[in-house]
Amino acid sequence: MSAPLPAPPATLNRLSLYLRCLRERLADGRPTISSKELADQLHISSAQIRKDLAHFGAFGIRGVGYEIAPLADRVHRLLGLDHKHRLVIVGMGNLGRALAAYRGFNDESFEVVAGIDVDPTKIGKCLGRVVVHHVDDLETTVRETAADIGVLTVPAAAAGDCYQALVDAGIRALLNFAPVQLPDRPEVKIKNVDLRIQLEETSFLLQRSVQVAKETD
Amino acid sequence: MSAPLPAPPATLNRLSLYLRCLRERLADGRPTISSKELADQLHISSAQIRKDLAHFGAFGIRGVGYEIAPLADRVHRLLGLDHKHRLVIVGMGNLGRALAAYRGFNDESFEVVAGIDVDPTKIGKCLGRVVVHHVDDLETTVRETAADIGVLTVPAAAAGDCYQALVDAGIRALLNFAPVQLPDRPEVKIKNVDLRIQLEETSFLLQRSVQVAKETD
Repeated sequence: MSAPLPAPPATLNRLSLYLRCLRERLADGRPTISSKELADQLHISSAQIRKDLAHFGAFGIRGVGYEIAPLADRVHRLLGLDHKHRLVIVGMGNLGRALAAYRGFNDESFEVVAGIDVDPTKIGKCLGRVVVHHVDDLETTVRETAADIGVLTVPAAAAGDCYQALVDAGIRALLNFAPVQLPDRPEVKIKNVDLRIQLEETSFLLQRSVQVAKETD
Repeated sequence: MSAPLPAPPATLNRLSLYLRCLRERLADGRPTISSKELADQLHISSAQIRKDLAHFGAFGIRGVGYEIAPLADRVHRLLGLDHKHRLVIVGMGNLGRALAAYRGFNDESFEVVAGIDVDPTKIGKCLGRVVVHHVDDLETTVRETAADIGVLTVPAAAAGDCYQALVDAGIRALLNFAPVQLPDRPEVKIKNVDLRIQLEETSFLLQRSVQVAKETD
């Protein structure tokens, strides 16, 4: 289960950024883009961009740049966006409802197909565009909706049990918003998004800039 | 404005993880923690942890580990968490309301003090625990609430104008959820959280594991 990655993790983290940029350019009707144009838009160095894209067999033509359509198509497929993923959101509080209705989670590559909660007043209702099912029916819901990605938006204390239930139901990829480190399991891929940690990093950046301003006074 | 960082960016990204782990251990009444215990909990190698913590002058004692209280205190101050930051959320849709009510955004280090929106039906109302003000009153609201961090949860098309308004109002740090790359400005620190990109990374991880499973069949 640990085949070599096609590129360093930092490069992979930039794939989505590249794809967004390429699509915007395609929508503008432009056939090519230079590494400098990508660099200016993404605030990444041209050298880094050329190195990243070379990992995927994309070689720019000097004076012309990269052909956008085939490059966008390649990145699209690398990201697994060429078929629709079906999301089940576990925890239909404010965040769960926000994500269920979020445009970026509902397009040609992703669709939120069900919500899960424990609150009896929510069960059977349509919240953020999806019907909410009881957590006891999680396995049935995953099977009937053919969900393949779980989105975990429950409080920390409930995260472990919900994770286990999702794995038992056959979910193999998870976007986890619960502020806990879930145990590693070889058959499940987890992407953690901890909003508190993002906020602490913002605080750190602010703290640093205030310190630097004081030092240079 | 570009003084050297006290440690590599990847180390800094782990500070919040360390802090959470140290606090949980403190709450359990334990005075020390070993790099191996940290490693087991965080799924980071002991060697990496020792290297990271050495950046901050924390040296473990062989056979004993790190003294938790002073280390937690040091990381807490490095992250700028020793004084309360006041957050203004611009865009009180589903995500804005979720964040306004989020426990991780409301504790001894952070407090959501105001919401901003354009929707006349929301203005003056209390949503997600905060009163919503019109975007035309953004500057007054930031001044009166002494907000120092902006949280941007508006649609992509509105993000540029709202960013400008926050900067004009004196905000110097921004947590940006809008799916756009905001222009760099030396006086403002931006932390981008793009939920669509996180989801695409989850898709990528799933895609990879399916491929690996096929290859090893």
